[in-house]
Amino acid sequence: MRINNKNLVLDGGFVKKFSLGVWAFSPCGDRFLIEGYRPSMPLEEIIRKVATIKDLSGVELGYPGNVNEKNLEELKSILKETGLKVSMVGVDLTGDRKWQKGSLSSTNPEIRREAIQLCKSGIALAKKLGCNSFNIWLGQDGYDYPFQSNYPKAWDLLVDSITEIAKTGVKVCLEYKPKEPRTHSYIATVDKALLIAHETGMKNVGVTIDVGHALAAYESMAESAVLCMKAGRLFHLHLNDNYRLWDDDMIVGSVHTIEYLELIYWLDKMGYDDWYSLDIYPYREDPLEASRESIEMLKALSNLLNKIGREELEKAIEEGDPVKTQKLIREKIFK
Amino acid sequence: MRINNKNLVLDGGFVKKFSLGVWAFSPCGDRFLIEGYRPSMPLEEIIRKVATIKDLSGVELGYPGNVNEKNLEELKSILKETGLKVSMVGVDLTGDRKWQKGSLSSTNPEIRREAIQLCKSGIALAKKLGCNSFNIWLGQDGYDYPFQSNYPKAWDLLVDSITEIAKTGVKVCLEYKPKEPRTHSYIATVDKALLIAHETGMKNVGVTIDVGHALAAYESMAESAVLCMKAGRLFHLHLNDNYRLWDDDMIVGSVHTIEYLELIYWLDKMGYDDWYSLDIYPYREDPLEASRESIEMLKALSNLLNKIGREELEKAIEEGDPVKTQKLIREKIFK
Amino acid sequence: MRINNKNLVLDGGFVKKFSLGVWAFSPCGDRFLIEGYRPSMPLEEIIRKVATIKDLSGVELGYPGNVNEKNLEELKSILKETGLKVSMVGVDLTGDRKWQKGSLSSTNPEIRREAIQLCKSGIALAKKLGCNSFNIWLGQDGYDYPFQSNYPKAWDLLVDSITEIAKTGVKVCLEYKPKEPRTHSYIATVDKALLIAHETGMKNVGVTIDVGHALAAYESMAESAVLCMKAGRLFHLHLNDNYRLWDDDMIVGSVHTIEYLELIYWLDKMGYDDWYSLDIYPYREDPLEASRESIEMLKALSNLLNKIGREELEKAIEEGDPVKTQKLIREKIFK
Amino acid sequence: MRINNKNLVLDGGFVKKFSLGVWAFSPCGDRFLIEGYRPSMPLEEIIRKVATIKDLSGVELGYPGNVNEKNLEELKSILKETGLKVSMVGVDLTGDRKWQKGSLSSTNPEIRREAIQLCKSGIALAKKLGCNSFNIWLGQDGYDYPFQSNYPKAWDLLVDSITEIAKTGVKVCLEYKPKEPRTHSYIATVDKALLIAHETGMKNVGVTIDVGHALAAYESMAESAVLCMKAGRLFHLHLNDNYRLWDDDMIVGSVHTIEYLELIYWLDKMGYDDWYSLDIYPYREDPLEASRESIEMLKALSNLLNKIGREELEKAIEEGDPVKTQKLIREKIFK
Repeated sequence: MRINNKNLVLDGGFVKKFSLGVWAFSPCGDRFLIEGYRPSMPLEEIIRKVATIKDLSGVELGYPGNVNEKNLEELKSILKETGLKVSMVGVDLTGDRKWQKGSLSSTNPEIRREAIQLCKSGIALAKKLGCNSFNIWLGQDGYDYPFQSNYPKAWDLLVDSITEIAKTGVKVCLEYKPKEPRTHSYIATVDKALLIAHETGMKNVGVTIDVGHALAAYESMAESAVLCMKAGRLFHLHLNDNYRLWDDDMIVGSVHTIEYLELIYWLDKMGYDDWYSLDIYPYREDPLEASRESIEMLKALSNLLNKIGREELEKAIEEGDPVKTQKLIREKIFK
Repeated sequence: MRINNKNLVLDGGFVKKFSLGVWAFSPCGDRFLIEGYRPSMPLEEIIRKVATIKDLSGVELGYPGNVNEKNLEELKSILKETGLKVSMVGVDLTGDRKWQKGSLSSTNPEIRREAIQLCKSGIALAKKLGCNSFNIWLGQDGYDYPFQSNYPKAWDLLVDSITEIAKTGVKVCLEYKPKEPRTHSYIATVDKALLIAHETGMKNVGVTIDVGHALAAYESMAESAVLCMKAGRLFHLHLNDNYRLWDDDMIVGSVHTIEYLELIYWLDKMGYDDWYSLDIYPYREDPLEASRESIEMLKALSNLLNKIGREELEKAIEEGDPVKTQKLIREKIFK
Repeated sequence: MRINNKNLVLDGGFVKKFSLGVWAFSPCGDRFLIEGYRPSMPLEEIIRKVATIKDLSGVELGYPGNVNEKNLEELKSILKETGLKVSMVGVDLTGDRKWQKGSLSSTNPEIRREAIQLCKSGIALAKKLGCNSFNIWLGQDGYDYPFQSNYPKAWDLLVDSITEIAKTGVKVCLEYKPKEPRTHSYIATVDKALLIAHETGMKNVGVTIDVGHALAAYESMAESAVLCMKAGRLFHLHLNDNYRLWDDDMIVGSVHTIEYLELIYWLDKMGYDDWYSLDIYPYREDPLEASRESIEMLKALSNLLNKIGREELEKAIEEGDPVKTQKLIREKIFK
Repeated sequence: MRINNKNLVLDGGFVKKFSLGVWAFSPCGDRFLIEGYRPSMPLEEIIRKVATIKDLSGVELGYPGNVNEKNLEELKSILKETGLKVSMVGVDLTGDRKWQKGSLSSTNPEIRREAIQLCKSGIALAKKLGCNSFNIWLGQDGYDYPFQSNYPKAWDLLVDSITEIAKTGVKVCLEYKPKEPRTHSYIATVDKALLIAHETGMKNVGVTIDVGHALAAYESMAESAVLCMKAGRLFHLHLNDNYRLWDDDMIVGSVHTIEYLELIYWLDKMGYDDWYSLDIYPYREDPLEASRESIEMLKALSNLLNKIGREELEKAIEEGDPVKTQKLIREKIFK
């Protein structure tokens, strides 16, 4: 068994820590193939497989689906054995029927209380796994129809809930997404996540950028990352790819090459030193191979930046002529 | 129990037959809430509920999920009892793991053969239910990644398969959709469906327009219907609503009012006299009430056309001034 | 000549002040028909025509294109004669070649200085017209290509510029838009506008919601308005319609009926009492008739809310069942 | 002056003929900056500049804007001098006010007759320039509003007009586009263009794929090209790039790398041997440099295919595993 608990240092001196959301190994069922595209696999087996991925040192886990109070000790033991760290624990406030009309923004006080409590329990558990960050993606908090939401009330409740959760002191990572499973999410864009962070008035509330959600919101991945870093609030990354109109959760770099390059350029430049975590959903592909290829692509892009020369790129950006910049990149890619 | 086996005749003399896809009553699970938003319900119970919907006279069924060789007799008995007709039988070539990389376009000869055979069995069964139409929506026939599809081969196989199925003589209804569950479907647009119909050279190959798929393809629902009717190939309708970027499968008329009105205007004008079949997916709503409201909305829109005056509308279209046309409609809607 | 300088009071006691951006009467040239779809018209003639629109009491003007230091006195005289107020003066930082790579965010200090100065001059002029609001839409401030923008620098400059302009004390209205003419605007969404407002730390920086820009950003128009009103920063509205993917600038209500109704509901409920200003671009329609129809549609929708009953709607929203809510609305619309 | 009248042969033996639409050198005005982003330039100067672009051998011209009966002889002389061929003449049925409500589909018989006549004159002129192809993009033939178009009538007129034009015998190239300047074009997708070609029953009616229009229609560029080639109807290519939601007309390869690679793979494989013609609109970039970079990018992508190995790619596609295929490509790109 490979021990892989160190950060990866690439040529240009830029640290990259790679991680993976274990749900890539789930059956990946969708609304038309509920049972999923492959059989399910025990978490232990998933983690042992993940541990064989070169240069990957972390796993991201959902609470209470992947990890919970019952399997905690067993999990800790496998993690110790494999040398993998827990990059992130994320709460699942989407996959249980009771959250279907909202969780942290629910106008039902009991539901909302229960959702807050679940976050607190998840945070306690994350700490036991040596993880001081907690990811919150609110799939069910939003609305489907016009005249459905009491917007001002929902937003107040949402901010209150997050503020309360943030008082635990861990890094609270808000993962925004424009839609799905609701037709409209409340925390839809990078700026809505940042606005909430500001409204809580707490420094430990930040953002998880899922690059696929950013693309689906017609954001530049790089600009969104920069805006969060300027605010000191870029806490986590979810990496995948798509065709810009939906959260296709594809292999990293399968569609967008240049924009990925730009994202990594700015992350490095502004000193992002936290996890690069895969959030892919390989419905019809082997999850292990899809994850490996995603990591290799990230490394290749990162190395390419060194090859092009980051100072050269900085100058090109200063000059502001996209033709010259493209030429600079093309000549290095294709030589 | 209400017997509802007659067509509905509205004020202006325009016949409307309303039907419903029974999957509206399924748990409506999605990839984040696999178990679904409500418990499942036996088909018998669903049909008895559906039969209580005013002015609805048909049910649309999936094969082999909803109806199959085993439950056929039982189903016939309930249909007789409730007076409901079978508006359509549609094949499910999406919801079994074996189709995950394609069915009628599969480059695996055995899979493709099996898919064709399933269609033929479904057609045989449809006939036993007094239904001479067969719906084919190919959710898994497409591709996700660049460099994944052998496009020319896949298209040839697809056309061959459909030609073979069409030789059964029933009305073969191709339901197009731009994407989901693949990132790209082969039969993506109204014109791709029409092109295949032309290529088969058979008059019994036509199109099912799912208006939500049309909207998601940035089509005008009305224009798509007209193009199919001009070719004598509009065989069926799936009705729902969405926000234009995804197949949200919402209640009819919940978002688009004017465009729905235009669709019905052209359907009536060009003599469409087949089913108006609901294809909604009410994740968080009561399916019975959502279906009722959808039918009531369709009737209200149809009646509104009579109120505005179809000759007035025809004149307005001839004149071609959208301001005058909008005024004409507004004054009748809001008076 | 009609004197129309009073607010309109509709049945339910809700005040509406209607205004119009005079560019609706321009030739409306686009990149394929540069000379435009109709001949140009002198401003005086435009204003006299606008003054004939029932229930419209304001005009919105661009600086320095429509109004400037040279034609100020002449304009004041026509306004006095017609009784029209100036609802808004907006700066044009898009339509001169010198701004093509940015204005308030330009990394060229001279260009940026000149752009700030133009805003200050425009504000001085607006005050002379009795208008204490100033609209800033930054069409050229953004980027087209990956690796083109120095994001952190541009954002800093942008916030600095707006802060300086806000020190004039007038209500500074930031109009956001996802794209066009750049492929990406900096101030792209309602939340980016709000974030900048927060960052300036000044209460007189707020937002202009162009509903077409909101739709193109996949925002709910109503939710965006609510978020601004909660922050005390909804300063102005630009009204039009589109197909959600581009700023089509169509006649109000030509596509979206229900969502417009929801927008007005929340504006009224939360006490918005400022201008309802048309921002339409009727390329192929008569601008006078298109404007009239837009105002009539707004009045019709507003009256419909009274007919449905705002308390009924409030209860329906509390109950949170979209089927019941749609039924409530449908029964009142179509009866 | 460089003489560049030969096709370019790249390493793998694949012929590429590069051309450029001269409108890249226009002021590129848009609706917010009508006068354009740079001064206009005489055609003679444009052509002399274009002739300096390495490996470019053709120019594409608009009729009657760029070339017409008056400047024909002068143009022929410059072409002879520079050695450039005319790759395509395209009719402008968008940029004159008289076409604003339609041209070849106009319900006004005089307008329609005049539009057909313009095409015939353009074809006559194209022949004099040694060009046997004629491009028709119908920017104004479509509709903006619901209830505006008499769809069946418009489609009949459109097919009749194209059939009449095709009787001239030249290759009639239909360039489809989903929207702009109308909110909806009639010839919106690759399949609508193919359907019309089929309906005319003439072999000399084919398709121009503008890859940016294909992307904006959520088509795979490669699949669209394959479908046209299968039908023997891929007559011309317009090359540029965009962000998938609008016709941004950017430099080739600035956003999409992998999908461009796939397009060229299939063009080569299926024997496309006609022009690769740039259709870019470099608003804020130097048009000469933007064109050069676009050609260099096309050559680099084409060479990359040779480097990866076309047989390797063919095998990878047969195998159908996108992970392996991506690995194959990545290892060659980034080594």
